[in-house]
Amino acid sequence: MYTKKLKLNANFEKLTGNYLFATVSQKVKAYQTNHPHAPLYKLGIGDVSLPVAPVVAHALRQAATEMADIKTVQGYGDYEGLPSLRTAIAQRYGDFRLSPQEIFVTDGAKNSFNHLFELFDFDTVLMPDPVYPVYRDASLLKNKKIVYVHATPANHFLPLPSDIPPHATPHIIFLCSPNNPTGAVYTTAQLLLWVDYALSHKAVILFDGAYRDYIKDDSLPKSIYQIPDAKKCAIEICSFSKSDGFTGLRCGYVVIPQDLLIAQKSVNQLFVRYLATNTNGVSFVVQKAALAALSPEGQAYSDYCINLYMQNAHAMHTTLQSTQAIFVGGKNAPYLWLQSPAHLDGSSFFEQLLHNHGIITTPGAGFGTQGQSYIRLSAFGSATSTQQAVQMIAQYYT
Amino acid sequence: MYTKKLKLNANFEKLTGNYLFATVSQKVKAYQTNHPHAPLYKLGIGDVSLPVAPVVAHALRQAATEMADIKTVQGYGDYEGLPSLRTAIAQRYGDFRLSPQEIFVTDGAKNSFNHLFELFDFDTVLMPDPVYPVYRDASLLKNKKIVYVHATPANHFLPLPSDIPPHATPHIIFLCSPNNPTGAVYTTAQLLLWVDYALSHKAVILFDGAYRDYIKDDSLPKSIYQIPDAKKCAIEICSFSKSDGFTGLRCGYVVIPQDLLIAQKSVNQLFVRYLATNTNGVSFVVQKAALAALSPEGQAYSDYCINLYMQNAHAMHTTLQSTQAIFVGGKNAPYLWLQSPAHLDGSSFFEQLLHNHGIITTPGAGFGTQGQSYIRLSAFGSATSTQQAVQMIAQYYT
Repeated sequence: MYTKKLKLNANFEKLTGNYLFATVSQKVKAYQTNHPHAPLYKLGIGDVSLPVAPVVAHALRQAATEMADIKTVQGYGDYEGLPSLRTAIAQRYGDFRLSPQEIFVTDGAKNSFNHLFELFDFDTVLMPDPVYPVYRDASLLKNKKIVYVHATPANHFLPLPSDIPPHATPHIIFLCSPNNPTGAVYTTAQLLLWVDYALSHKAVILFDGAYRDYIKDDSLPKSIYQIPDAKKCAIEICSFSKSDGFTGLRCGYVVIPQDLLIAQKSVNQLFVRYLATNTNGVSFVVQKAALAALSPEGQAYSDYCINLYMQNAHAMHTTLQSTQAIFVGGKNAPYLWLQSPAHLDGSSFFEQLLHNHGIITTPGAGFGTQGQSYIRLSAFGSATSTQQAVQMIAQYYT
Repeated sequence: MYTKKLKLNANFEKLTGNYLFATVSQKVKAYQTNHPHAPLYKLGIGDVSLPVAPVVAHALRQAATEMADIKTVQGYGDYEGLPSLRTAIAQRYGDFRLSPQEIFVTDGAKNSFNHLFELFDFDTVLMPDPVYPVYRDASLLKNKKIVYVHATPANHFLPLPSDIPPHATPHIIFLCSPNNPTGAVYTTAQLLLWVDYALSHKAVILFDGAYRDYIKDDSLPKSIYQIPDAKKCAIEICSFSKSDGFTGLRCGYVVIPQDLLIAQKSVNQLFVRYLATNTNGVSFVVQKAALAALSPEGQAYSDYCINLYMQNAHAMHTTLQSTQAIFVGGKNAPYLWLQSPAHLDGSSFFEQLLHNHGIITTPGAGFGTQGQSYIRLSAFGSATSTQQAVQMIAQYYT
């Protein structure tokens, strides 16, 4: 007997009405309408502003031509991704020895979390606060309990297992380093603590490495797999968005090591079966573009772009350091996480910067309760406008 | 207190070990290894074989060039799709008056079912048997109860609400017309019965129109929205794959009318919020390609390709009609659903055709219990090899 009525997923009611960045975008549009001639300083959404590499555009054009020729047209591809691209990605990991079979090409990080959740039966997730809102919203929509670990000045914005509330036993642990929104970067010793915790509590780490290529300090880990035994407990999610300008092209990848077993069963094999049911893989032309991005020419261009963005981050870091401001990030990461001036919460500071100066930032409250008195600054704007904007911001701290 | 251990999603155990088409592909590879010089007749997987339109390739190349120029590079786009593409798709519906806000661009139909399931709280789905395995597997992975309606010679392979088992009250109803795998096409009067059933039982229809452009008989409905009131109970899922050769490019769309309300709430608005959390939209270059496919030049090319495929379908239909074979499809659809000769089940027939002649088909058992004594033939092969293959197949019925 089936008697329950069709209902809407009530978990939607747990979400804020609008996705954070959509709300910011609406406020900026309203400002522009009222101030059509005022300059805008874009330190808001984390969208890259430089074009893709010439070699990437060339690969796209070549793939387009192949698609229009009966001798070279590509139909359905492997669900897991182009073998050549999986091999090139595996090679990025060098000494950490990942095989192409452990790499899955995706259309970007966001949808990947949705896919990965489907592999497991669990009720509790752990994530930092502040946090990239997608982890939180995706967890709420699937009715998971969320345990937050707070990122505060006290722990240098890098929460550790010792910050986990007593009695909490999370099944899935979200980590992001370099972090969005704070720009803080875990050391190898700190990630080791997380891997130890996951192994001893039989939890799985979802490690978001979307900003890995912003790490220029060789002592900092670019991948969770730099920690011995991480292959037994961690899935890594990466993207071509921030390193290669692919926010509009859409390509990323997920690493599921063969060593990751739950009750002796391979999570990697389960994902193969999952993808066959739920996707037909990523666009052939986009995968060819990603392959070109990983070529020496593509990587040289990526370094060039990241250096330009990091000059912005450095300018903001240097200017703010000369003030009394409390902040983190801007080194090895394209974001800075800035405490608002005394007697001003983060959302009011966001509004003042927008309405008094045309500076777009992101209010920290959108990233969690620990963001109430913070704003996020991004390094993806132009050099001149970033320098002008941070001078104006610095005046609030003198 | 959180005490439950992390487990794997046990619903995977309900699936067959391999996705149907992956299994067929393995058997074909084994045959090729053993018979490296034997000809292959490809009537198997539903992958198109003709290239994309020149205008589509041109649009892709142009978009690639835009992506490499700082003045025109496209970053994150609207989650719902390019406004110009949503408008062009809405215009396809002509008199049925859909607005661009009712169209959502997707990376193809498969992932869409996964997304749509998340909008609802329900326990029972209805689908035909035989059925496109994705509906079944996606439902099993989410632990839904499945009610099957059988497609048999008795109902001309077009199950109707009168075929629903007594006491079943499905919440979600999968329909596909022209049908995969049978090639049968619902009439307007038949779809009206389904819409009436859905409205009176407060169920939602997921109407898969991936093969809509193969309908050349104007009296047959290309869209569920040709039925008055369907906008109150139906979501339509379409794809550029089969009509425009996009199986490798990945683009499709979902239609959620504003009139579709559950407990007075808009499903359309819920999907907007869902997409913001779970995707960053479809690749800009692929959306530009889809827009070109909808241009007059793109549509003329699409008609040309569909005509070529339908000549194959017609050849198979005509040849089989001259035998005692029981079959359906091949008119207004690129598939034929063929009962195997007496004393031979569908899987044995599939094996015999492969091993005796090199003819690739798809065993009906993979589509459901009602497919045990059937095979599916597809019209996406070349003209010569399709004609040769169907002559060999016909010999089994004389």
